Amino acid sequence: MASASAPAPLALTMGDPAGVGGEITVKAWQALRATGPAFVALDDPARLRAIAPDLPVREVALPEEVAATFADALPVLPTALAAPAVPGRPDPANAAATIAAIERAVTLALAGRVGGVVTNPINKAVLYEAGFRHPGHTEFLAALTHAANRPVMMLACPALRVVPVTIHVSLRAALAALDADVIVETCRITHGALRRDFGIAAPRLAVAGFNPHAGEGGAMGDEETTIIAPALAALRAEGIDASGPWPPDTMFTEAARARYDVAIGMYHDQVLIPLKTLDMHHGVNVTLGLPIVRTSPDHGTAYDIAGKGVADPRSLIAAIRMAGELAAARRRSG
Amino acid sequence: MASASAPAPLALTMGDPAGVGGEITVKAWQALRATGPAFVALDDPARLRAIAPDLPVREVALPEEVAATFADALPVLPTALAAPAVPGRPDPANAAATIAAIERAVTLALAGRVGGVVTNPINKAVLYEAGFRHPGHTEFLAALTHAANRPVMMLACPALRVVPVTIHVSLRAALAALDADVIVETCRITHGALRRDFGIAAPRLAVAGFNPHAGEGGAMGDEETTIIAPALAALRAEGIDASGPWPPDTMFTEAARARYDVAIGMYHDQVLIPLKTLDMHHGVNVTLGLPIVRTSPDHGTAYDIAGKGVADPRSLIAAIRMAGELAAARRRSG
Repeated sequence: MASASAPAPLALTMGDPAGVGGEITVKAWQALRATGPAFVALDDPARLRAIAPDLPVREVALPEEVAATFADALPVLPTALAAPAVPGRPDPANAAATIAAIERAVTLALAGRVGGVVTNPINKAVLYEAGFRHPGHTEFLAALTHAANRPVMMLACPALRVVPVTIHVSLRAALAALDADVIVETCRITHGALRRDFGIAAPRLAVAGFNPHAGEGGAMGDEETTIIAPALAALRAEGIDASGPWPPDTMFTEAARARYDVAIGMYHDQVLIPLKTLDMHHGVNVTLGLPIVRTSPDHGTAYDIAGKGVADPRSLIAAIRMAGELAAARRRSG
Repeated sequence: MASASAPAPLALTMGDPAGVGGEITVKAWQALRATGPAFVALDDPARLRAIAPDLPVREVALPEEVAATFADALPVLPTALAAPAVPGRPDPANAAATIAAIERAVTLALAGRVGGVVTNPINKAVLYEAGFRHPGHTEFLAALTHAANRPVMMLACPALRVVPVTIHVSLRAALAALDADVIVETCRITHGALRRDFGIAAPRLAVAGFNPHAGEGGAMGDEETTIIAPALAALRAEGIDASGPWPPDTMFTEAARARYDVAIGMYHDQVLIPLKTLDMHHGVNVTLGLPIVRTSPDHGTAYDIAGKGVADPRSLIAAIRMAGELAAARRRSG
């Protein structure tokens, strides 16, 4: 029986039904059924049963039924597919269901009926064929939630949290896009999220330089002195503990990591390289700056291994656990 | 008594006498006296005795005396300082001795009387004040040895070997400098050195992309298709096993590292970040493409801690051990 005091479950979207999402969803339920956090899959029950014929999959009508179900069966809020899911073969006919699962999860989260949203990987190209018009998953969530600010991508594993200021652009474009305002805005949103969602009262932000040795006083580039240092000064004037610009190559050692709560990097690989080098399997993508909690695994649809039973669920499990922690922190902070 | 069959010792230069070189030299001798490889310090015996008053420091006249001495005392080929060494206070008056130690080490190595050269850190700025005119330590060694090709910097630790194609330049300058020829030349020299010095018969080179996700087919930059892919094609046509361009963020995981002998990166931090994140203390700088063996610790003069007894000798010890292995490989290959 559902306890009235059980926290709201998390909503887990199906993602691209041709990818590994269904398989890792089933594996995550097996790993978490005894311990939680409880979640409900927004998915097609028939396709989950086909993936795991021996496991109990139970349709529920409301998130409020999940707490009583989760230990015994994988709870599913039915979201029917238009065409059979074929592993490795994405089908635009199923784009509407993929999108509907995301929209429903967000609606439930905004209403407080789920504690947060965990998203399985999608393939933007397939959604675009079906008329999807957002640059990506995160931007879609920002639009659905009417977010007041730009969403910020954090990647987190037990050893390290990182936030890249520029993301999926060429290094040449990252160089062109870098300015003090975008650094300040990214750091502000990160700082606020670490306080509210991660329960860190006085977050310590370590900001990387852009060039080798952080430019070595201008000898190897001036972005540190012309862009990053002014941004840091502005942040400190607001009372944000933002240090740097640090030489990028020595800021991810164990000793250095002990001195900050998050590393802010200037470009994708500057922070993704250390994160994935330290921990390939437990990286979680967390979207900061949204009115709802949202995490996702740090990998894609993995069509090449979909349907083979070999997909590694660790990143999704870490994403669900982290969403549970973030939701608990938001409950505590009111 | 020196055995006629003992391999030639290594020569260890003093580096900047105001830095940590003397201290880590003494610590390295303590760590290696029983096991080797044997080395001789090209240094001022008086200043080494001042650093370690209780340790035996023995002046030798020739490298050939080192084998019989090394287990009992730190052997020193005297290289007198012009002014007293003051920790943390670099003095251009001692630049000549710093340079003389390097020159003598190279002369002995070219003559086969030492098996290789290990260099303690120098401070270029101090040497420039005294008239030094080379861009750096490595270029000076290349000039002294009349190297036929550009020297190539490799950083190595037990978990990983890396070679950056561009090094101490801004990221903007690295972008401008990148072309297929420099990638091909760097890979050729690296390939030859792995065969000759590291005893790897068929070296596997993994070449990084430049942009996030290696450009994702042109969506995030085109350096992969216009520069790196043509370089790889040229290398493969020569029979060099060069794979890539790999997405930079996933090429340093444990599983990925098992598939190559060296990672070739496009810019400094792309390869220095994973190396230092994996192993801050055992990184060794190896100069490839010289007629002599040369290694050095992967850190600088560390003026801030010089004279305090806290300098960490692990990188120097690793550099000496690696020089010993490289020298042995060269002896075996004749």
